[in-house]
Amino acid sequence: MAKTYKIATIPGDGIGVDITDAAIQVLKKLSDASGSFQFEFTNFDWSSKTYKERGYYIPEDGIEQLKKFDAIYFGAVGWPDVPDHISLWGLMLPLRNSLCQYVNVRPTRIIPGTSSPLANCKPGDLDWVIIRENSEGEYAGHGGETHTYYDNAVATDVSIYTQVGIERIMRFAFETAKSRPRKKLTMVTKSNAQRHGMVLWDRIFNYIKKEFPEVETDKMLVDAMTVRMVLQPSSMDTIVATNLHADILSDLAAALSGSIGIAPSSNLDPTRKNPSMFEPIHGSAPDIAGKGIANPVGAFWSAAEMVEWIGEKDAAAKLMKAIETVTEAGVKTKDLGGSKNTKEVTDAICAEIGK
Amino acid sequence: MAKTYKIATIPGDGIGVDITDAAIQVLKKLSDASGSFQFEFTNFDWSSKTYKERGYYIPEDGIEQLKKFDAIYFGAVGWPDVPDHISLWGLMLPLRNSLCQYVNVRPTRIIPGTSSPLANCKPGDLDWVIIRENSEGEYAGHGGETHTYYDNAVATDVSIYTQVGIERIMRFAFETAKSRPRKKLTMVTKSNAQRHGMVLWDRIFNYIKKEFPEVETDKMLVDAMTVRMVLQPSSMDTIVATNLHADILSDLAAALSGSIGIAPSSNLDPTRKNPSMFEPIHGSAPDIAGKGIANPVGAFWSAAEMVEWIGEKDAAAKLMKAIETVTEAGVKTKDLGGSKNTKEVTDAICAEIGK
Ligand SMILES: CC(C)[C@H](C(=O)O)[C@@H](O)C(=O)O
Ligand SMILES: CC(C)[C@H](C(=O)O)[C@@H](O)C(=O)O
Repeated sequence: MAKTYKIATIPGDGIGVDITDAAIQVLKKLSDASGSFQFEFTNFDWSSKTYKERGYYIPEDGIEQLKKFDAIYFGAVGWPDVPDHISLWGLMLPLRNSLCQYVNVRPTRIIPGTSSPLANCKPGDLDWVIIRENSEGEYAGHGGETHTYYDNAVATDVSIYTQVGIERIMRFAFETAKSRPRKKLTMVTKSNAQRHGMVLWDRIFNYIKKEFPEVETDKMLVDAMTVRMVLQPSSMDTIVATNLHADILSDLAAALSGSIGIAPSSNLDPTRKNPSMFEPIHGSAPDIAGKGIANPVGAFWSAAEMVEWIGEKDAAAKLMKAIETVTEAGVKTKDLGGSKNTKEVTDAICAEIGK
Repeated sequence: MAKTYKIATIPGDGIGVDITDAAIQVLKKLSDASGSFQFEFTNFDWSSKTYKERGYYIPEDGIEQLKKFDAIYFGAVGWPDVPDHISLWGLMLPLRNSLCQYVNVRPTRIIPGTSSPLANCKPGDLDWVIIRENSEGEYAGHGGETHTYYDNAVATDVSIYTQVGIERIMRFAFETAKSRPRKKLTMVTKSNAQRHGMVLWDRIFNYIKKEFPEVETDKMLVDAMTVRMVLQPSSMDTIVATNLHADILSDLAAALSGSIGIAPSSNLDPTRKNPSMFEPIHGSAPDIAGKGIANPVGAFWSAAEMVEWIGEKDAAAKLMKAIETVTEAGVKTKDLGGSKNTKEVTDAICAEIGK
């Protein structure tokens, strides 16, 4: 009998809905083609729309419900009529935190049929995996505001870094670097200016690296790192950085690889005690929501990462191959210089999987 | 009789020394050519070398001494045998803070004879001024570390934002935007994730902008901002961001304009109660220090900003013109695709000024 994977889907807002639909269609096609496994999808309508109606994103037992699934597929969150810090702290960040998804993996490369906006960057020159710390640091949420009504407001944002938190992300990054052909890890901080937490990062990096003598390492400051990404893309491979630094660098990486519409991300609990969550890195894009023109490639690539994570490596490879065959053939949305819509790209990829 | 401007020079470390020498030479040439003013330079040997010898960067009365000058010219700080957070918190950051230099201005454009690494970016497409908050935020230095010896370390970095601090940088940014032809200001935060200080930035931006109805505004999240800088450079003009965000974005901006070796920065006290400080944004570059090959253009452009700030607008324009004539003629260092050394570029610019 075919194995069944239980997948929770949270389409969220805007194009999150469009691309989650597309991803489900492609995933169904993939399991049909395989014959050896199937997906059972359960939809969770947690969005800014339901927040406006009910006053919350995640119901009281929401996290408990999700724990029963093998994986979570997430679309996007954010809508103009809810302040962004409400929607994120109401939906995405509690998911990442309460499901112990302390790693966010963000691969970037130039896939066939796409090109970098950098003049001298050929496919293959840019092939990075950014390992983002996903549970603490600048996203700890601590801090507050005082003297708001005295024209003398003071606000603080407190970044919190723990030895446990840093050690586990470092080990994950070193393992990732070790598993890749170049075995190279670049660690990014801003320890010159941020003299407490970032200095702790440096110190922990220096002892963890002794556990991985086969991995070549270097260190960069986050500001200088942007320069290196633009001017020497081929000099890097695996990159590890804090929650905020990696957030910024991974958007930059996606732009340098051609479009933010391509890039996938995996929020992982490497202990596998909780389900991991997969989402394209683009947002809800209110300006094009519902128009059927969103680029679904980031969604499909994220789906491929999910399929790989649950253990169906051949199917994951098949999906990536189908994506790349279709983009190479020029079946692409506008952001990639093509003229197709979401459905046309989705259908083409399904057809490719069916071959 | 010719007016005399008293300039304190702090060459600092590495190529800071090479390029400060070059800047002094060019500034002398500029005052000779003008005939109406002259510079009196006083050198301060505050460097990582003297720190190793004496245990401090700035002597006890150092800041008081600097207050007597009309401006400060700074080279670079940072050397491999002193941890970066020591050198910065020992030298550069105390200067910015105790001299109330709460604005850091970072213009970026593609100067003649140079080109962007972006394939579709022509000179003129990228012409930005980044206004960096220079006195608080992520550089407040607050925080600490505990449980260091229990394998259970916790460290915090506390970002502090004040209404006074935000209002003054916003007003400066709006004034800058207003003074430029496009009258356009983009404000950058990460208020979705950093829900205290960044939300205060948003709120203050919303009321200050009413004072400047002639300025067109928009808002970006820092991660998405990197994408826009890469994919739509011509869509922005003046940019305002926090200390850390603008630090990252201004390095990215310099890279997108061709080389970090070109970019200038001005640490300003707009009240003019204290001297302002001018420095190229590149660092001390230990790998090429003392070799005479550093690109002096960022140093000269910073010198031009200084000359403009002290009130010699014609001389400042003359210096910028000389820089651009020389780069256009191909007299450039290696990072710009040329083959000249520091001295050759400096001599060429001096010759141009003398014409
Ligand atoms: C929406 C936002 C809070 C989020 C983040 O900063 O983590 C997004 O930018 C991302 O990269 O997943
Ligand atoms: C050296 C470093 C502390 C400094 C900063 O981050 O301010 C530098 O990067 C700069 O941009 O002036």
